[in-house]
Amino acid sequence: MANNTVSPANKQSGLVPGTVVYTGNKSSGDLFIEVFDYDKDSFEEKELNKIEEAFSYADTEPVTWINVNGINHTEAIEKIGDHYELHPLILEDIANTQQRPKIDEYEGYLFVVLKMLYFNKEGELEIEHISFVLGPNYVISFQEADGDVFDAIRNRIRTGKGRVRTMGSDYLLYALMDAVVDNYFNLIEAMGEKIEELEDDLFEEKPNDDITYDIQSQKREILKIRRAVFPLREVVNRIEKSDHPLITDKTQFYLRDLYDHIIQVSESIDIYREMIWGLMDMYMTTISNKMNEVMKVLTIIASIFIPLTFLAGIYGMNFEYIPELKYKHGYFVLWGLMIVIFFGLLYYFKRKKWL
Amino acid sequence: MANNTVSPANKQSGLVPGTVVYTGNKSSGDLFIEVFDYDKDSFEEKELNKIEEAFSYADTEPVTWINVNGINHTEAIEKIGDHYELHPLILEDIANTQQRPKIDEYEGYLFVVLKMLYFNKEGELEIEHISFVLGPNYVISFQEADGDVFDAIRNRIRTGKGRVRTMGSDYLLYALMDAVVDNYFNLIEAMGEKIEELEDDLFEEKPNDDITYDIQSQKREILKIRRAVFPLREVVNRIEKSDHPLITDKTQFYLRDLYDHIIQVSESIDIYREMIWGLMDMYMTTISNKMNEVMKVLTIIASIFIPLTFLAGIYGMNFEYIPELKYKHGYFVLWGLMIVIFFGLLYYFKRKKWL
Amino acid sequence: MANNTVSPANKQSGLVPGTVVYTGNKSSGDLFIEVFDYDKDSFEEKELNKIEEAFSYADTEPVTWINVNGINHTEAIEKIGDHYELHPLILEDIANTQQRPKIDEYEGYLFVVLKMLYFNKEGELEIEHISFVLGPNYVISFQEADGDVFDAIRNRIRTGKGRVRTMGSDYLLYALMDAVVDNYFNLIEAMGEKIEELEDDLFEEKPNDDITYDIQSQKREILKIRRAVFPLREVVNRIEKSDHPLITDKTQFYLRDLYDHIIQVSESIDIYREMIWGLMDMYMTTISNKMNEVMKVLTIIASIFIPLTFLAGIYGMNFEYIPELKYKHGYFVLWGLMIVIFFGLLYYFKRKKWL
Amino acid sequence: MANNTVSPANKQSGLVPGTVVYTGNKSSGDLFIEVFDYDKDSFEEKELNKIEEAFSYADTEPVTWINVNGINHTEAIEKIGDHYELHPLILEDIANTQQRPKIDEYEGYLFVVLKMLYFNKEGELEIEHISFVLGPNYVISFQEADGDVFDAIRNRIRTGKGRVRTMGSDYLLYALMDAVVDNYFNLIEAMGEKIEELEDDLFEEKPNDDITYDIQSQKREILKIRRAVFPLREVVNRIEKSDHPLITDKTQFYLRDLYDHIIQVSESIDIYREMIWGLMDMYMTTISNKMNEVMKVLTIIASIFIPLTFLAGIYGMNFEYIPELKYKHGYFVLWGLMIVIFFGLLYYFKRKKWL
Amino acid sequence: MANNTVSPANKQSGLVPGTVVYTGNKSSGDLFIEVFDYDKDSFEEKELNKIEEAFSYADTEPVTWINVNGINHTEAIEKIGDHYELHPLILEDIANTQQRPKIDEYEGYLFVVLKMLYFNKEGELEIEHISFVLGPNYVISFQEADGDVFDAIRNRIRTGKGRVRTMGSDYLLYALMDAVVDNYFNLIEAMGEKIEELEDDLFEEKPNDDITYDIQSQKREILKIRRAVFPLREVVNRIEKSDHPLITDKTQFYLRDLYDHIIQVSESIDIYREMIWGLMDMYMTTISNKMNEVMKVLTIIASIFIPLTFLAGIYGMNFEYIPELKYKHGYFVLWGLMIVIFFGLLYYFKRKKWL
Repeated sequence: MANNTVSPANKQSGLVPGTVVYTGNKSSGDLFIEVFDYDKDSFEEKELNKIEEAFSYADTEPVTWINVNGINHTEAIEKIGDHYELHPLILEDIANTQQRPKIDEYEGYLFVVLKMLYFNKEGELEIEHISFVLGPNYVISFQEADGDVFDAIRNRIRTGKGRVRTMGSDYLLYALMDAVVDNYFNLIEAMGEKIEELEDDLFEEKPNDDITYDIQSQKREILKIRRAVFPLREVVNRIEKSDHPLITDKTQFYLRDLYDHIIQVSESIDIYREMIWGLMDMYMTTISNKMNEVMKVLTIIASIFIPLTFLAGIYGMNFEYIPELKYKHGYFVLWGLMIVIFFGLLYYFKRKKWL
Repeated sequence: MANNTVSPANKQSGLVPGTVVYTGNKSSGDLFIEVFDYDKDSFEEKELNKIEEAFSYADTEPVTWINVNGINHTEAIEKIGDHYELHPLILEDIANTQQRPKIDEYEGYLFVVLKMLYFNKEGELEIEHISFVLGPNYVISFQEADGDVFDAIRNRIRTGKGRVRTMGSDYLLYALMDAVVDNYFNLIEAMGEKIEELEDDLFEEKPNDDITYDIQSQKREILKIRRAVFPLREVVNRIEKSDHPLITDKTQFYLRDLYDHIIQVSESIDIYREMIWGLMDMYMTTISNKMNEVMKVLTIIASIFIPLTFLAGIYGMNFEYIPELKYKHGYFVLWGLMIVIFFGLLYYFKRKKWL
Repeated sequence: MANNTVSPANKQSGLVPGTVVYTGNKSSGDLFIEVFDYDKDSFEEKELNKIEEAFSYADTEPVTWINVNGINHTEAIEKIGDHYELHPLILEDIANTQQRPKIDEYEGYLFVVLKMLYFNKEGELEIEHISFVLGPNYVISFQEADGDVFDAIRNRIRTGKGRVRTMGSDYLLYALMDAVVDNYFNLIEAMGEKIEELEDDLFEEKPNDDITYDIQSQKREILKIRRAVFPLREVVNRIEKSDHPLITDKTQFYLRDLYDHIIQVSESIDIYREMIWGLMDMYMTTISNKMNEVMKVLTIIASIFIPLTFLAGIYGMNFEYIPELKYKHGYFVLWGLMIVIFFGLLYYFKRKKWL
Repeated sequence: MANNTVSPANKQSGLVPGTVVYTGNKSSGDLFIEVFDYDKDSFEEKELNKIEEAFSYADTEPVTWINVNGINHTEAIEKIGDHYELHPLILEDIANTQQRPKIDEYEGYLFVVLKMLYFNKEGELEIEHISFVLGPNYVISFQEADGDVFDAIRNRIRTGKGRVRTMGSDYLLYALMDAVVDNYFNLIEAMGEKIEELEDDLFEEKPNDDITYDIQSQKREILKIRRAVFPLREVVNRIEKSDHPLITDKTQFYLRDLYDHIIQVSESIDIYREMIWGLMDMYMTTISNKMNEVMKVLTIIASIFIPLTFLAGIYGMNFEYIPELKYKHGYFVLWGLMIVIFFGLLYYFKRKKWL
Repeated sequence: MANNTVSPANKQSGLVPGTVVYTGNKSSGDLFIEVFDYDKDSFEEKELNKIEEAFSYADTEPVTWINVNGINHTEAIEKIGDHYELHPLILEDIANTQQRPKIDEYEGYLFVVLKMLYFNKEGELEIEHISFVLGPNYVISFQEADGDVFDAIRNRIRTGKGRVRTMGSDYLLYALMDAVVDNYFNLIEAMGEKIEELEDDLFEEKPNDDITYDIQSQKREILKIRRAVFPLREVVNRIEKSDHPLITDKTQFYLRDLYDHIIQVSESIDIYREMIWGLMDMYMTTISNKMNEVMKVLTIIASIFIPLTFLAGIYGMNFEYIPELKYKHGYFVLWGLMIVIFFGLLYYFKRKKWL
């Protein structure tokens, strides 16, 4: 499954640079467009199926958020590109789900790519490609499919809670990115629980290759998360430090806070990474401990009974003249000897702390 | 338990940025406010339960230290924010125990976050979130709960010992941060003792999975300490290098010294980190050595008695014609042979240094 | 085979610097020259065997691409060097297949070296040395042998699709480099499949040294790929940042995009590198798990039957007076005892989770 | 023992910054002061017990070296501090043996901390805290106890050999630091010998936990040495690069040379570090090899004699009708068969290269 | 042997800085001086035994190369130092074989130290100390002993091939350094072959401690090579970037090329380093695989014959009443049962893929 490999697999080589091709695996979804048009005093919310209808909103004064779900509909992306005169490479990056997080500054607009991460119902990591175009009075967001982490922001626009209604499009971009990053915290928490489960499994279950496989899967997942999150540090840092006219001073404080959060997520990821790498070592010692225990049982039983069996063998021989066999109490004396040997060896193993 | 995971778990995503929400696990504590108001010649000490009463002190000329215990009382934080016109993101960070150490410079005040570390009575690592606001003639400190490492500073203010009474609020901030960092040395020492105990356990006890688990716990703890301490280096470095008007030249010397101490703690942490990582390897060799010993005992006993038992088996056979059985001294000759084999093998194992 | 070592083996030491010597292993190929001469409105395509014939095209106004296959024909390289007045060290680097990716800026022209990577039919990694000279209205490419990744570009020139015909020689250089980098994605994908195959082998097959060998080979391959790809980051970054008059502003956007792609490939390579390193650990635990299983079987069977055999040995002894032997049901009682021991031990091993 | 931990253990937290407290473990020594007062033409040498007597020398024109042994006598340090108007934090650092190597530049003087390393008679690493104050015409050195590496310099001052008598106090500081660093080379050499001994032990002795312990000790020692030496690189680099008026151009050449030496020591330390880390792996393979050998002996003996014993058991059965038992040469035929099996198995193990 | 340790062992501590002491192990060689005096049109070659005779050549206009073999003759070095007014620290570094590669710029001359590496006849790594002084019209090279990698350059001077005769002394320095670096490629190739041999040994031979030892030796060698080569990167980079009047623009192109070669060698060294570190892991899995095989043989044979021997033991018992013994075909029925068990177990092990 394309989603499971770490390689940017679906990239079609040989294409003209700037060609808009969807490279993800959610190509069956419908196109679905949301528009929020608001200022301090009023707001309007619309759901559209045709991209052209959105343009009229965005061209008016108040801040407009156009949320495009379904980047597999590349023709819609191209129409937006025509209308807003976006660079062809941006259009390519909107549709190219393999594109890593980045920020591109152009005259008149900013382009930001990032990744929305969540575990799906099967507990598998899903990486959704999401990109933003920030213009003077609009933000256009592009998502692979329906369903996102922006409900809280929608409510804030509707109810006028918080600062979003009173500030410009740059604050909206910040708010959307903040929502994506906030969601990383949930992911990181889920990750932590998975690792703790694995640790518990190591000690409880009997050793089997599945755990090795699980650990390796965790490694791969954390590496993929890392790749999705780490470039974001530079992205946000560059937006904050940027002197692009679209980014106002007031928003820069918030971006610095966002940057802080990403650093925090990054640190947690690296700690979990170290923990997972440590799991393999833990597992090795656990296996070795179990092996040790197995070997001790064998050694104790064999070391006790092999010599005793030898003794029994001696007196099972058929030599014509074996004096001990004639003694009346020979059999009982031998039993006594064997019991002494038995407890002597038990004591020896006890002292060696094998028991 | 929230305290045991490395993830910033309690962060409620979806909140308006700047919302003041306490995210720690000490939410039952009472609000408790201390005020120290002093200059070179006099000092006053008060304990309050209402934050409003503190403002009158801080607004007068002498240096005032307002120590707020109980950041779960978010309404008090908001009142302070209103009174001193602090940025809403600062208020959020005061209450957000997941916030990493940082320094934010604003016009008119400085905001510093750090972590107080200690082992609680159960020997578990506790990380307490602590933040400072430095103003022209005041320092406000925010703690999660009662109990801290500032008693020595309280005494110095009361008795006028040292420089604290003769210098400004920036020196007080330095003194408070220095107390926190000084306490790291105690933590590091306790850490070192734990590691030495673990090393001793490795050699003395019989291998068991608990040690593996303990080592993994130590790894996690040191990673958490590292995350709490390392960002501090940049924090202090930035305060020292800062040309913020609140930081005087005289205090900069002290901050450089503080920076030195943090570097020292950081180096110790990294050395312990390497030691702990090494423990797992040590443990593996210890297990292998023990396995080796077990296998040698088995091999020596089995290698000696299995051939002897075979010989006894030979003369236990019921063939009609086995000439040796008829020899008068056959039995004794065989014993002799067996004893020769026995000592021959013993000598062989001795020479191989298995005994 | 020279191709299999990571060392720059074929370098003849002691040569005058600037001597043009082919150091690869494809020295039997013929010289084969392609020329594309195009502008917005027209294009001409020629195949030549003599390098001199190409010069007339490149000296005219429209953009010319001279593609030289067979850098083992060093005399042709020298003729080009004479005609375009290239620095002798450049000629050396064109023929020296050991040269790492680099960019050299000269007055009037740019020189770029990179590596074309593919798996040949035997599944082995092939590294082909490829270099470009960018002049005011021409690009000369030098390849080791026939066969490359430029067919898409040839078609775009022929059909006029995309931007290539409307832009200058710097865009052509970009397009050629982009084609090489695009092909890395295919390589990376193939790499990913190999690693997944190896992971599956680890669990399915019985342990053997071949897997160890395969893992080590993969390590070497990824290290070689890394070495071919990583210097490219700086190369493209330097072209983009360069203010060389041959690089136009328009092309710089595309170069930034190319840079992004190389970063993406680099990250994938590093992830695969970590995965491969992890494989060895996985393999070790797999072996240990198998060993554990083997030992358990031995321990269970030996621990059950060695004591029983001892009991049988007891009653095989020939003492004159062994009372049990006389009991009528002695034999059956013993069988009963043995069955109890048998199931008792089975239950013991079951409880230890060894069964 | 305080000396054995890597933590800066003895730091008393809660003290007023700038308090002079000795934190080492050589607090019983007497105070002992040496004074060298010299210029190109003359020199004077004195041994004093009271620090006040030294001041008169240092205040005169010629260069004076005051060597203070016994920094446990904190009152003497304070007197020096008063006389030369040193910053209180410097006095604290002179007595605080936990202070890492550093350079502090003040107006009118320089303060340098470094570590003298040697193995004591018990072969344990000793770290002695040593600090220098460089003034316009004096150098004051502070040592924990009597005994140092400066005898060569003393002789050079007495005999006028070398440049020391003809140059200023900055050269004297260089010469003293050079002597400390020169001594690191001896330490490094001793370290190398210890590691080679350990390597030899690995192969010769029978595996035991002591070696594991020794390796871990070596790790700790090298980490401690590293911590003492590595900060010195920046210290010397900063002195060399400094434009402090006390450092003359002529001395800067020598400081660059000193820097070179420290880099050399640092590289050796890192090589040894890698070697020691490798030792644990070596040891693991050595143990495993030994285990392998043990298991082979067991397997060969058991695999040969267990089947033979089975055969003997067969003909020890008491069935009424076992035809082979009646054959006249049955016994000898069986022996023949057993010998064939014996050599057959031997040949099998030989071919497997187990013998 | 001094040559085998990584420590800078022979450094005599306590010497006056600038003292010229030979610290290598080739102190028995004779002093031998070569002089090449050339310009575009003529050249002269001389072999001398006294250093004074060389000065007349170097003081004339044409470029002069004075090659001094035998730096154990420290008095000759001192004479050169007097004649050319070299800094005493340079003279110390010429003779000090422990000095790491470096570049020192002085007014009027440049001083360069590097290392000539080769495997001697015993296959051991030899590191020869070599240093250059570049003056306005001369280069003086200092070698430990006769025999070097400069024959190609001698021939180029004699025959006038290449650029050496037409360019200045800075190109000669470049040419000499290039010859040293070119030779690293041979070394690296030899290293690669050694590693491949080791890999083959791992799979073919039976495990023994020698391989562990060989791997550790390789580690040490590569670390020593690394230390000799890596500082060279900065050395050449600094010469190239330097604006010292002795380095002409024309030569800078060549130095950039040299820098490229050193990077290439460095990369190869690091790849081999990773390969060697991987070898230890490979070896561990190989040993474990072999152990696995040994254990399987033991387990299979023991698991089959121990139960069968038990059965035989049962019917070797001497109970008066064992009904089976009386059955006519009892013996054959038992054989049948045993054969069934035998094949049953074989089939079981087959299914477990142990056979």
